[in-house]
Amino acid sequence: MNGSGNLMDFLDEPFPDVGTYEDFHTIDWLREKSRDTDRHRKITSKSKESIWEFVKSLLDAWSGWVVMLLIGLLSGTLAGVIDLAVDWMTDLKEGVCLSAFWYSHEQCCWTSNETTFDNRDKCPQWQTWSELMTGHTQGAGGYLLNYFLYIVWALFFSFLAVSLVRVFAPYACGSGIPEIKTILSGFIIRGYLGKWTLLIKTVTLVLAVSSGLSLGKEGPLVHVACCCGNLFCSLFSKYSKNEGKRREVLSAAAAAGVSVAFGAPIGGVLFSLEEVSYYFPLKTLWRSFFAALVAAFTLRSINPFGNSRLVLFYVEYHTPWYMAELVPFILLGVFGGLWGTLFIRGNIAWCRRRKTTQLGKYPVLEVIVVTGITAILAFPNPYTRRSTSELISELFNDCGALESSQLCDYVNDPNMTRPLDDIPDRPAGPGVYTALWQLALALIFKIIITIFTFGMKIPSGLFIPSMMAYHHHDWIIFKNWCRPGADCVTPGLYAMVGAAACLGGVTRMTVSLVVIMFELTGGLEYIVPLMAAAVTSKWVADAFGKEGIYEAHIQLNGYPFLDVKDEFTHRTLATDVMRPRRGEPPLAVLTQDSTTVEDVEALIKETDYNGFPVVVSRESERLIGFVQRRDLILAIKNARQKQDGVVSNSVVYFTEDAPQLPASNPQPLKLRRILNLSPFTVTDHTPMETVVDIFRKLGLRQCLVTRSGRLLGIITKKDVLRHMAQMMNQDPESIMFN
Amino acid sequence: MNGSGNLMDFLDEPFPDVGTYEDFHTIDWLREKSRDTDRHRKITSKSKESIWEFVKSLLDAWSGWVVMLLIGLLSGTLAGVIDLAVDWMTDLKEGVCLSAFWYSHEQCCWTSNETTFDNRDKCPQWQTWSELMTGHTQGAGGYLLNYFLYIVWALFFSFLAVSLVRVFAPYACGSGIPEIKTILSGFIIRGYLGKWTLLIKTVTLVLAVSSGLSLGKEGPLVHVACCCGNLFCSLFSKYSKNEGKRREVLSAAAAAGVSVAFGAPIGGVLFSLEEVSYYFPLKTLWRSFFAALVAAFTLRSINPFGNSRLVLFYVEYHTPWYMAELVPFILLGVFGGLWGTLFIRGNIAWCRRRKTTQLGKYPVLEVIVVTGITAILAFPNPYTRRSTSELISELFNDCGALESSQLCDYVNDPNMTRPLDDIPDRPAGPGVYTALWQLALALIFKIIITIFTFGMKIPSGLFIPSMMAYHHHDWIIFKNWCRPGADCVTPGLYAMVGAAACLGGVTRMTVSLVVIMFELTGGLEYIVPLMAAAVTSKWVADAFGKEGIYEAHIQLNGYPFLDVKDEFTHRTLATDVMRPRRGEPPLAVLTQDSTTVEDVEALIKETDYNGFPVVVSRESERLIGFVQRRDLILAIKNARQKQDGVVSNSVVYFTEDAPQLPASNPQPLKLRRILNLSPFTVTDHTPMETVVDIFRKLGLRQCLVTRSGRLLGIITKKDVLRHMAQMMNQDPESIMFN
Repeated sequence: MNGSGNLMDFLDEPFPDVGTYEDFHTIDWLREKSRDTDRHRKITSKSKESIWEFVKSLLDAWSGWVVMLLIGLLSGTLAGVIDLAVDWMTDLKEGVCLSAFWYSHEQCCWTSNETTFDNRDKCPQWQTWSELMTGHTQGAGGYLLNYFLYIVWALFFSFLAVSLVRVFAPYACGSGIPEIKTILSGFIIRGYLGKWTLLIKTVTLVLAVSSGLSLGKEGPLVHVACCCGNLFCSLFSKYSKNEGKRREVLSAAAAAGVSVAFGAPIGGVLFSLEEVSYYFPLKTLWRSFFAALVAAFTLRSINPFGNSRLVLFYVEYHTPWYMAELVPFILLGVFGGLWGTLFIRGNIAWCRRRKTTQLGKYPVLEVIVVTGITAILAFPNPYTRRSTSELISELFNDCGALESSQLCDYVNDPNMTRPLDDIPDRPAGPGVYTALWQLALALIFKIIITIFTFGMKIPSGLFIPSMMAYHHHDWIIFKNWCRPGADCVTPGLYAMVGAAACLGGVTRMTVSLVVIMFELTGGLEYIVPLMAAAVTSKWVADAFGKEGIYEAHIQLNGYPFLDVKDEFTHRTLATDVMRPRRGEPPLAVLTQDSTTVEDVEALIKETDYNGFPVVVSRESERLIGFVQRRDLILAIKNARQKQDGVVSNSVVYFTEDAPQLPASNPQPLKLRRILNLSPFTVTDHTPMETVVDIFRKLGLRQCLVTRSGRLLGIITKKDVLRHMAQMMNQDPESIMFN
Repeated sequence: MNGSGNLMDFLDEPFPDVGTYEDFHTIDWLREKSRDTDRHRKITSKSKESIWEFVKSLLDAWSGWVVMLLIGLLSGTLAGVIDLAVDWMTDLKEGVCLSAFWYSHEQCCWTSNETTFDNRDKCPQWQTWSELMTGHTQGAGGYLLNYFLYIVWALFFSFLAVSLVRVFAPYACGSGIPEIKTILSGFIIRGYLGKWTLLIKTVTLVLAVSSGLSLGKEGPLVHVACCCGNLFCSLFSKYSKNEGKRREVLSAAAAAGVSVAFGAPIGGVLFSLEEVSYYFPLKTLWRSFFAALVAAFTLRSINPFGNSRLVLFYVEYHTPWYMAELVPFILLGVFGGLWGTLFIRGNIAWCRRRKTTQLGKYPVLEVIVVTGITAILAFPNPYTRRSTSELISELFNDCGALESSQLCDYVNDPNMTRPLDDIPDRPAGPGVYTALWQLALALIFKIIITIFTFGMKIPSGLFIPSMMAYHHHDWIIFKNWCRPGADCVTPGLYAMVGAAACLGGVTRMTVSLVVIMFELTGGLEYIVPLMAAAVTSKWVADAFGKEGIYEAHIQLNGYPFLDVKDEFTHRTLATDVMRPRRGEPPLAVLTQDSTTVEDVEALIKETDYNGFPVVVSRESERLIGFVQRRDLILAIKNARQKQDGVVSNSVVYFTEDAPQLPASNPQPLKLRRILNLSPFTVTDHTPMETVVDIFRKLGLRQCLVTRSGRLLGIITKKDVLRHMAQMMNQDPESIMFN
């Protein structure tokens, strides 16, 4: 068992930085896993030596759970703080609480003694800006002043947000989910999950949502949770020094993020599994669930919404649903799918324009303009003026007798002795009609503005906007449906199903979406309508374009992401994809015992490959191993500094033993330690489909191609991605080179 | 691109049966996947030719969803029928309904006009056997007669069940989950999921559960659903001809099975993902969820439990839980973990004894004896006499004012003006104490009898027994806890948490268990207590032994199952595991152009290997490809029958073109078509950890080992399993040879 050195060497780390990766490079999952096993083995064998080592090994075994606990606690706390701050700042645009300026509208009136149940949201302590300044509550002047200050506050918040992002943490912009998907698939983007990003994203998220822009806090909360995950990884060398293990933690953190965004721990785990994660072993499943639960529980303890429910928009409908209603649910699904396609196309076209034209050079101006337009258009309509989550909460609600919302303004006929429970039978009052056209306007406005908002240089999420904008739609269906019959349908349920359909169309989630929706609303009974809409929406949207919004953004940004969902069904072989192609210069290889230091340095200078295969000799072309460019550079640098006698014409040996050379020859440089003796190989006849499968499942960076034991070429992840894009007739040059 | 023939050839299927597998062999996942892609490609390219072909391609694309729909419908229906039949036959042991003999006790009294609400389960139409025969309702004679007939019915049912299993479908015995796990991992057990098994398992499951044996219908329902899946696979050649695709359907069917067993569609999908499936792509996730929903919905439409809830044991507790209660919940988890360890050890010891001693030869007698003992001991105790699911339902329940159960026999003080909701404060009546010792006895009895029951030659499941037996336990905790304080805890919640803990200890599920429990009971609020108990239970149980009950049974039966959960952390290399070992005869190889038909036949006769590597020549040892033994036999047989001139000393060519031979030489046999040109290779320095990973993730059967391009040896799945067992110091010979 001599010569099995490569494993040990990663552990010993002969020179600093060997085995690490450069920015914007892809990690080697197999190597990371191997390194972790070595580390684990070392600790286990040491643990028998002394009690202290045993305790240390126990701590090491438990560190995963500790990290999960910390992530859950911190992301739950941050989500609670964000919720409270957003609540306060959204209301600050309209007025201020005189008794305590840090109270939101609801809290202000809640603590007031003069509040009656019927006029819950009116109390003397809460004053709009016009009341405070002019003393009048009514009148055109007051309205205009409020309107003006609303716009000013919105512009101020968004300007602050975009400036903070630009100055301190450029990575804190956007939803973050496309980048997190890419990072989880093994790409390195240094600083994307750093401390600064965490801080700035948290602050600017509050500002951006409060400014009234059509964006949600859900995607960014996933990013925030992943930053927390990354932060706590640095506490344990097990995670900080291993990019593979770190990604397991990040997968769990993403689950915690969704968990706090929606109060949906199971949905969060499924979201992480279905949507963002790349490598999701069962161990991560359990840990993710733990982190998600802790996070949801922490958020619940903070209780930012003032109700004791774990769920955000708790619904309880009076009437069950009927089989016949499946038809409108499926229609909602179709609508959601169409909307999803439209949204993705529109948004991507706009983002591409931003990237390629002058527009991209003025991000601050763009944000200001969009905020301005949003604020100007949003204020007159009560449904767009308020925060989106308040609106959703109202839409999902079943009209009760005590409901003050305009949507529930049914005519209460005093002559009728019917019990109050039986509400849907009452004729609709004028308030309902006002509400309906306001909602229709709100729908159109939100659809258009969201297309332009998502992708700006400001933290932005899609979930809540897609959820809300498009379910007003159902109100129109509901209107036609409900009029004739006496046994009316539940409008809130339609809103919920419509929300699921639209989200499904945009993100292409199915199971996790249904689970999130039902955890969000607590409606286990409505799982069939939700599923029907979600699956229809996905089918319809998939018919027009295979990618969800996140994949589309990944592609737009050219990240090297090998999607597990894409099926590769073309009939090409490894030999068609490998390099060198016919006519290209031969593969750059090293020989095991006949290359000099000078040759190696020349090779490194001339090429920009990430690594080089090592063969027995150029004639036999028999493969020995693979050496990383980075390791080679470090090793030679190290040798030249420290090792006496290594000069330019020293021979580099990758063999087990360097031969005894006469003293006149320069000292040889032995590099077997940095040689990977188990490079991955396939034959030239291997179907590309299998190769793609191997790259995905094993997380390879590159794979060598042989024929009857002779080295023929190399296939890198980039080659695979380029080939897949070619096969789909897409622009092959858009993939970022690494 | 010549010579890429191997792919095409699988499609053309040169001789019948090429590319199929023998019984008790392992499938090659990569090859199955490759074949499916080829099929798909063929259909896609054909679809452009005519409208009919286009419609066919659409049908093909939708066939997956059709199969899911059919599985959902059939397994939902079967589950409903089984529930109804079990209900009726369980009651048949005690009495009969005079108005209609096919009514169960509940249905009988439900339809009767003479039933009052207080005496729900007493009506003149329902008569116990003693009433019917002697006319007396009371007295020792009647009791003894009922006792006797109870035992007779139980013995009759179980005798019928075991006889049916033995005569018609020996595979219909047991829980089925260990075998299904093995099948899903790629093993072939012909007939295990056949029509006969489906029919007999359905019938005998009813008999076995009705006989009162300590077993549940949940595991067997998974088996039944998988049989349905297999049945519907045969409708579509896409699934029937591809073992890989078939397993995707079976994974979804397993989800549907759990879904109907517990009314838990999400839990079913997670169970399939966490516990039984091996290869679970995202596409299967969506389809599983669809199948699970359809199944749950069908079952709900049949409505065997007479309530409109989707959930089986709907609970709604009056009081929330407190943080301090986490301590007893965690203690319950510890208890559950200990119990799980005990159960697995006891059961495995008993099953091993059954396998190795005379006991195994009398399965019918064993079943009769166990049924007899169960019936004799069960009848006197009202908690064991009834069906297990009824008992669980009662235990999980919160005591309401109208509850007639003995467990809720609190003293209703007429002087107290307290509202009826405030029940826990009332002092416990004598009924509670009777109930407590009866439950304690039931607990001990169930624990012991279940160890002997699981694994008998009769359909048996574990879920319900593990769930019920051990939660009475909590009653004892509850007893001590509840006495002093006024603000009493909810006993039903403890029963639920205890159930989760015990199931977790036995099966080592976590997420799916929690989700099942909460779907079963509808208690989203109790997810934290459930999770605390489930995780503690798993940790405790894992500390004593890594395997769950299903893995233990897989190992007991020696199935070649490569568990995804086992981590291989030993520092061995491929060279240590590959064969031939040092001192063994060299590897049996074929050469590409110098072996005769005679040589090949001799090699096939002398060895029992599943396949042979093909090399350029024995000197160079450079690998060309791999040929399956089965394909080789078929090809030679076929050639001898049809092809003129192929005789024993014909040369077998694996090269692209056979050379022109003089006419005097016998006709060559060209076998490149059956040669796999892309065999999987690793170098001899590859750590075994990586090799295990590759075997698991790619589902390989074998892997060739090379060093600098030279073929050194071979590693089969069996070698990997044997090595893993050796490293864990287990009996390496217990793995079934394939």
